[in-house]
Amino acid sequence: MAGEFEFIDWIRRRTPAADRVLVGPGDDCAVLAPGRSPLLVTTDMLMDGTDFRLGEVEPRRVGRKAMAVNLSDIAAMAGEPVGAVVAVALPRGRAELAEELYTGLREMADAFDTPIVGGDTNSWDGPLAITVTIFGESAKPVRRNGAQPGDWLFVTGPLGGSILGNHLDFTPRIREARLLADAVDLKAMIDISDGLSQDLHHILTESHCGAELDAAAIPIADAARTLAARTGKSPLEHALGDGEDFELIFAVSAVDGAKLMKDSPVPVWKIGECVVKGYGIVENGVRRRLEPVGWAHSL
Amino acid sequence: MAGEFEFIDWIRRRTPAADRVLVGPGDDCAVLAPGRSPLLVTTDMLMDGTDFRLGEVEPRRVGRKAMAVNLSDIAAMAGEPVGAVVAVALPRGRAELAEELYTGLREMADAFDTPIVGGDTNSWDGPLAITVTIFGESAKPVRRNGAQPGDWLFVTGPLGGSILGNHLDFTPRIREARLLADAVDLKAMIDISDGLSQDLHHILTESHCGAELDAAAIPIADAARTLAARTGKSPLEHALGDGEDFELIFAVSAVDGAKLMKDSPVPVWKIGECVVKGYGIVENGVRRRLEPVGWAHSL
Repeated sequence: MAGEFEFIDWIRRRTPAADRVLVGPGDDCAVLAPGRSPLLVTTDMLMDGTDFRLGEVEPRRVGRKAMAVNLSDIAAMAGEPVGAVVAVALPRGRAELAEELYTGLREMADAFDTPIVGGDTNSWDGPLAITVTIFGESAKPVRRNGAQPGDWLFVTGPLGGSILGNHLDFTPRIREARLLADAVDLKAMIDISDGLSQDLHHILTESHCGAELDAAAIPIADAARTLAARTGKSPLEHALGDGEDFELIFAVSAVDGAKLMKDSPVPVWKIGECVVKGYGIVENGVRRRLEPVGWAHSL
Repeated sequence: MAGEFEFIDWIRRRTPAADRVLVGPGDDCAVLAPGRSPLLVTTDMLMDGTDFRLGEVEPRRVGRKAMAVNLSDIAAMAGEPVGAVVAVALPRGRAELAEELYTGLREMADAFDTPIVGGDTNSWDGPLAITVTIFGESAKPVRRNGAQPGDWLFVTGPLGGSILGNHLDFTPRIREARLLADAVDLKAMIDISDGLSQDLHHILTESHCGAELDAAAIPIADAARTLAARTGKSPLEHALGDGEDFELIFAVSAVDGAKLMKDSPVPVWKIGECVVKGYGIVENGVRRRLEPVGWAHSL
């Protein structure tokens, strides 16, 4: 169908992924050379008023986020991105949004050598909506279901308060995931979109085990402290419950965990361990049950 | 991210494509076994008020169309669908739409053995928007740029008046394209989304040639006649200019064309021939220039 982006010049950049683009935008489908590894596919739609507020943020950052949340899903499986397609519904009369959006989309895709191989641009009487579908590859995709009692749990960065800006400006942990996958056996992994307590719970549910966290070990973002001063909640509550930091949570064996504590290729924080059952957190010597609640996916 | 469809039971159907789904919805990405042929990817977003009117059509037919327009792009390259992902923005408070939409999506995907491997379901204060991204494979993707002077031009079905219903209920020509690709050398192909005169013009532009059509040979849909009685335009004008019939236009050598005229695996209509340059149509012995105008992609 019509409406494809004009990303052809950009695709001509010489990267391993770009070299696989046999046919770019302009035909009915993009065509990519086949790969040898399993194909990863994920899609996310971002909507004005839910994932961003167009009156308050630059469209470039919206485009950036739309690409980044999808890259983050590829990172969560320790994959390498291969390409992306983008579908946009622009509010009628706001065609100028397109260029800024695309700048943001391309900036983020570019940072991870991801060719944008096709798209569908439309205008309508509704608010801005943008869907990115990304595909990648991983010789050994890391799933959510491989954690076991005794495994150590890590995160890749400080958490909480992303609403103050990080939910738009975060860096998807593509590189970190690949380096970690090369260094240790990642038994389960997920990206933090809904919040630490909720996303870790997804791992536990799929892996049929529990976890105990150490409150003092959870890295807390400066933004969580700033936000806490306003909300009356504790910075820890923000670190546990806020979504959209897009750091990774992963489980490794105790042996691999000790190895990372000694010499990790990227910054990681050990936040707790997997147990047979239950879900708790110890703060100042007191254990309490942790509830898998968090981000409700709206601003 | 959260919000994936629960299509897992359905994926368990045993089809060649479904057997390649290593990880379905529920992890951060779907995972598919790698293929040997080039990968085709295409995305289309459908929006309430532009591609359908929710108050006037059943949501099931909207879901059906959202999947079908994407399958049609795979057909246009003579591909086989391998899988699809779906992102939906539901108007807030209309969660009941989801089930009907999904029924339509699955009905159409099912008809072409296409597993729906992932998705993203959201609600918001805007109208219904739905993005389907489909991927497929073709050992030899048919592009738009291979037509040459002397080639014969065919369509796979009668055209015009799709607004009366066919734009929602058409059958994507996946099977027809495969059968034709097995029978002859398809030199260029496109699906009719914008209208015969405009979509054929895409082939001519990409192939750097012209075409002369025979008005009497263009198959005209009954709907084009019905619509013509209301609009005052001729049925032929509707067949040339209306969009969204999603039949295929293709070019083959004169030798292959003669072969199809004698014994085609599927119904085809020869509508004209490629020439060195120019774009015209002969009606009642009079040639006039054909303008590549048509469907403006709105109701």
